Amino acid sequence: MTTDLTVRPVFFVSDRTGITAENFGHALLTQFNAIKFERQSIPFINSEEKARQAADTINQAAKKYGHRPLVFSTLIDKFYRSIIADSQAYVIDFFDTFIKPLETELHIKSSHASGLSHGIANEFVYMSRMDAVNYSLKNDDGVNTKEYKNADIILIGVSRSGKTPTCLYLAMQFGLRAANYPLTESDMANNQLPESLHPYRNKLFGLMINAERLRTIREMRKQHSEYASLSQCKKETKMIKSLFDIERIPYIDSSQISVEEMATSIIQLMKINRPPIY
Amino acid sequence: MTTDLTVRPVFFVSDRTGITAENFGHALLTQFNAIKFERQSIPFINSEEKARQAADTINQAAKKYGHRPLVFSTLIDKFYRSIIADSQAYVIDFFDTFIKPLETELHIKSSHASGLSHGIANEFVYMSRMDAVNYSLKNDDGVNTKEYKNADIILIGVSRSGKTPTCLYLAMQFGLRAANYPLTESDMANNQLPESLHPYRNKLFGLMINAERLRTIREMRKQHSEYASLSQCKKETKMIKSLFDIERIPYIDSSQISVEEMATSIIQLMKINRPPIY
Repeated sequence: MTTDLTVRPVFFVSDRTGITAENFGHALLTQFNAIKFERQSIPFINSEEKARQAADTINQAAKKYGHRPLVFSTLIDKFYRSIIADSQAYVIDFFDTFIKPLETELHIKSSHASGLSHGIANEFVYMSRMDAVNYSLKNDDGVNTKEYKNADIILIGVSRSGKTPTCLYLAMQFGLRAANYPLTESDMANNQLPESLHPYRNKLFGLMINAERLRTIREMRKQHSEYASLSQCKKETKMIKSLFDIERIPYIDSSQISVEEMATSIIQLMKINRPPIY
Repeated sequence: MTTDLTVRPVFFVSDRTGITAENFGHALLTQFNAIKFERQSIPFINSEEKARQAADTINQAAKKYGHRPLVFSTLIDKFYRSIIADSQAYVIDFFDTFIKPLETELHIKSSHASGLSHGIANEFVYMSRMDAVNYSLKNDDGVNTKEYKNADIILIGVSRSGKTPTCLYLAMQFGLRAANYPLTESDMANNQLPESLHPYRNKLFGLMINAERLRTIREMRKQHSEYASLSQCKKETKMIKSLFDIERIPYIDSSQISVEEMATSIIQLMKINRPPIY
């Protein structure tokens, strides 16, 4: 047993995937970075037995750490909620907090249905997200541009500037058909866009990256290669910046930001009217 | 102007990506499916001007729809929050609701820093997520199994049973190195696992799918093909079920569940000790 106040166990409990509980808890916990949180997700609590097991796990952690765990709950079922509420935890109950006020505001009772958040609530929307993922995978290397007419967005940039994960995130999270075209040194030699991209100019968005960062990422892929050398990275980043400027391609610098930030910035900057994702 | 109470404008406002605001609002709105919500995300509110623009947009919607919009806010900045609070909206303020009680419980002040939730808060964790995405892309077709020793999980199933998007989600969201191996009819002919998978038996997880669903998905890919025919789909799904049973491969049926549900189920069923994603 310990009573170290700088370490705290945290549980995310849910009827279904627990993704909402984790996101919601995580967003709050990032505000308390002096504390080390020991996180555990307990998803799919859909029986009394599982609820009691979860409560046991929480109580064991309370004993082990010497103070009560935090519990972020998105449980819908009242009975399971009461079991968790009886554990030795500080429970932050997402639905309990917000559902009542929303019912009042909307003049309607909530459905108390679970698993709607990350399930297939809308078959059509779900299938178009999966379609977008397949599209982005198929249009990931610039070899074939004939499907670019169906793209919502086409990312361009040098190799390893973050195009692929950003495209996949745009597809998976937002259902956007995101293609990407890697620009090689020879593509950029004339300081103009490759011919095959001309018809899609209004869908192009550039990813910049600084040379140091690019070197680090390329080194992880091909150690001690010319490709990963600082001189090569400097050359390519300089060329691409010049190309973006001359061709007036909107771009952002991916060096310090996450795929989530890139994706949401791109949607905003390109004024993409993205389909409702839910 | 309309006063149709079954349609309601909704805004997600945030200092940064708005992803937390959307997730949090969405989870609540799914509980009110009798109402049609017109959703709009306003991310990157990081200046007084942008906050005032957002308030204007909200007020215009209030006028257009004839009743006040819902606003889900994860704004951290007090001044910008006050501008939004003064708009003609019903504001549900995520941080305002939970931060104070958490400060009391944790005996510590919150940092009031924005953008920690979906930014690169932890460089190492972020890079390993991106690494996992690259790994999953490289190990997506079963052609090369020599990197399977580095896999956290290897999904097996027939073509179009949902392996690829599930692997990508496992990588993107949870930082897991998820490979996938598509089983063809000839792979399954002997009712045993392909030789190349034997060394990785403890990492294998199966995706089942029902024949009707498989047909629908394959039809979207190759219309009117033998590959997409119901008879072929029935044959393959029967073979794979038999293979999973004989080889005692754990599996789930992907027919009715989302990639998010598959990913979290797999982690739980395989007892994967996933790295903390934040």
